[in-house]
Amino acid sequence: MSYERDNIRRMAGYTPGEQPQNPDAVKLNTNENPYPPSPAVMRALAETPADALRRYPSPTSAAFRRAAARQHGVEPEQIVATNGGDELLRLAITTFVNPGSPVGVAEPSYSLYPVLAGIHGSPVVRVALGEDWRPTPDFAERMNRERVPLTFLVNPHAPSGTLLDPDAIATLARSLAGVLVIDEAYVDFVDPSHGHDVIALIRRHDNLLILRTLSKGYSLAGIRFGYGIGAPGLIEPIAAKTRDSYSVDAVAERLAVAALEDQAYATSTWEAVRGERARLASRLEGLGLSCAASESNFLLARVPEGFAGGASAVYRYLRDQGIFVRYFDQPRLRESLRITVGTPEQNDTLLRALARMNR
Amino acid sequence: MSYERDNIRRMAGYTPGEQPQNPDAVKLNTNENPYPPSPAVMRALAETPADALRRYPSPTSAAFRRAAARQHGVEPEQIVATNGGDELLRLAITTFVNPGSPVGVAEPSYSLYPVLAGIHGSPVVRVALGEDWRPTPDFAERMNRERVPLTFLVNPHAPSGTLLDPDAIATLARSLAGVLVIDEAYVDFVDPSHGHDVIALIRRHDNLLILRTLSKGYSLAGIRFGYGIGAPGLIEPIAAKTRDSYSVDAVAERLAVAALEDQAYATSTWEAVRGERARLASRLEGLGLSCAASESNFLLARVPEGFAGGASAVYRYLRDQGIFVRYFDQPRLRESLRITVGTPEQNDTLLRALARMNR
Repeated sequence: MSYERDNIRRMAGYTPGEQPQNPDAVKLNTNENPYPPSPAVMRALAETPADALRRYPSPTSAAFRRAAARQHGVEPEQIVATNGGDELLRLAITTFVNPGSPVGVAEPSYSLYPVLAGIHGSPVVRVALGEDWRPTPDFAERMNRERVPLTFLVNPHAPSGTLLDPDAIATLARSLAGVLVIDEAYVDFVDPSHGHDVIALIRRHDNLLILRTLSKGYSLAGIRFGYGIGAPGLIEPIAAKTRDSYSVDAVAERLAVAALEDQAYATSTWEAVRGERARLASRLEGLGLSCAASESNFLLARVPEGFAGGASAVYRYLRDQGIFVRYFDQPRLRESLRITVGTPEQNDTLLRALARMNR
Repeated sequence: MSYERDNIRRMAGYTPGEQPQNPDAVKLNTNENPYPPSPAVMRALAETPADALRRYPSPTSAAFRRAAARQHGVEPEQIVATNGGDELLRLAITTFVNPGSPVGVAEPSYSLYPVLAGIHGSPVVRVALGEDWRPTPDFAERMNRERVPLTFLVNPHAPSGTLLDPDAIATLARSLAGVLVIDEAYVDFVDPSHGHDVIALIRRHDNLLILRTLSKGYSLAGIRFGYGIGAPGLIEPIAAKTRDSYSVDAVAERLAVAALEDQAYATSTWEAVRGERARLASRLEGLGLSCAASESNFLLARVPEGFAGGASAVYRYLRDQGIFVRYFDQPRLRESLRITVGTPEQNDTLLRALARMNR
């Protein structure tokens, strides 16, 4: 006999990118930072006292909230720490969406959003992005028409890397009747010359919830640490009610604080990634694979039909050689590969394999 | 403007036990193991490579599932790893209960169960335990009458420590129409002379989901690691669909495997706790505080009315002296204190304070 709810029985789970066990794999498929975490993080790990393992962690992750508040110039009450950014996505649905009410997503986008809506028992309102991977002018109106209480928007956009500027986000936040989650998983890789700052908007927009994560920018995907930034009225019910008690562990919190406080190191990895992003994009273009302008740590590279059998063939060919990139078999994406920007050596290995393939 | 769902706005969050920051506090309030984790755990922590932090963890927690399956003589498909036992409780509701359908709990019990039901938008069917803190003979029938799809039962019972034997659990599993979660958070402290084994029942009962945690028995409350054991049909939808992607972090998984594989060490701490449990119960009785027979790492001590102003006064008095125990201001419990079994020194400090108080 099956005890599952009907909606769970019918749905498919999220398909994570492959995590190859082979340490020699060139892993450019799940957008990890190619550089190791800060030495300060490794020190914090080594110095973790046995008592931090034995005891329950701070139920509010107080030390991290203070550190993040300092870092972003906000109050601790405007921060909530979560078990990876993915937990914040789930909690936003749990907190702001009645089961059965719709969840709004831009299409294409992070494939976890509809999975989380499905688990919640909510339909998904999908509004297609424009040709430039940005919301079309009627985006908010269409969400409002469907009475969407919560809309997810990843910025820089995944999988294209396109950046939407703060003015456009402010307009969306003002226009939407529900909560707007800006998923800034990749924001650390935005070129600082843009002066991009969405956090400043939370004072004026009480429906704006910003997601950050330590997974990418701080090289800490393994410890699952994300956080939300927003008006206290958005943060409080998540932090005090819907979040699992003690959802963030004591070791992860220590490492997250150490990582956040070593901005000099983190910034140096972002710079290196940006440098390689430009070089990789230009070399891919040279091979005939055009890339959307990316402000993230990945490139969406369009594979011409004539190139070695097209995107899905190239994906499999690379995989056979231990080079992992991401292929999405869905409209607007099945002619492309999403390639994480790796170290110079990893990127060269990829470029050599592509060049060989197209001989 | 408030964006919360109505049920979230109306509810109160879970109240965790206090986590005092003072390292000299005698902390007997949240049932941590008083002994540090295994030296093998500390080695695994120190040897964590930077790459384990940088990369995403195994999405299925494969290494832990294998280790737990070996430990319990089941298959990895019968195990799901979760971010603390609390995540498994939430996931059981998410997976098996439609919002609005009721969740069954024995009363009194772990106060998180009704909070999780409230977040889900589900009412709670509360069935009072008997005088002996065990389910009454009509327990299953009453749950079935209310069409309860999921019932939580903590065993050994919290906060009394009373143990229900496997035969009684088999009878409940057979009688209940829905899923039965046996929350074995404290099972490691059961006297081995009982030969208590509920895991053997999962072969015959496809509705039986067993919760285990590393928090208490393995001195790892800080890393948030729990797991579920059950028939593959119960485990699969949780592991593959409703669980957050990567909900268990890489460091926690390493430490959990190391802890589970050092049974000799863990067992030695359980023995020490049992020895102290007997001594503490007998000394408390000597002071006039009678304790329910406990197979857990805590005692529910009844404070006579004449004793220093009663339970709540004693709780506050102890707290003023840096001794933390748990007081529940609710029916059947407000005359008692739940006292975690500490080290011999901690227990003596408590006993001396109680003796002084009652002079």
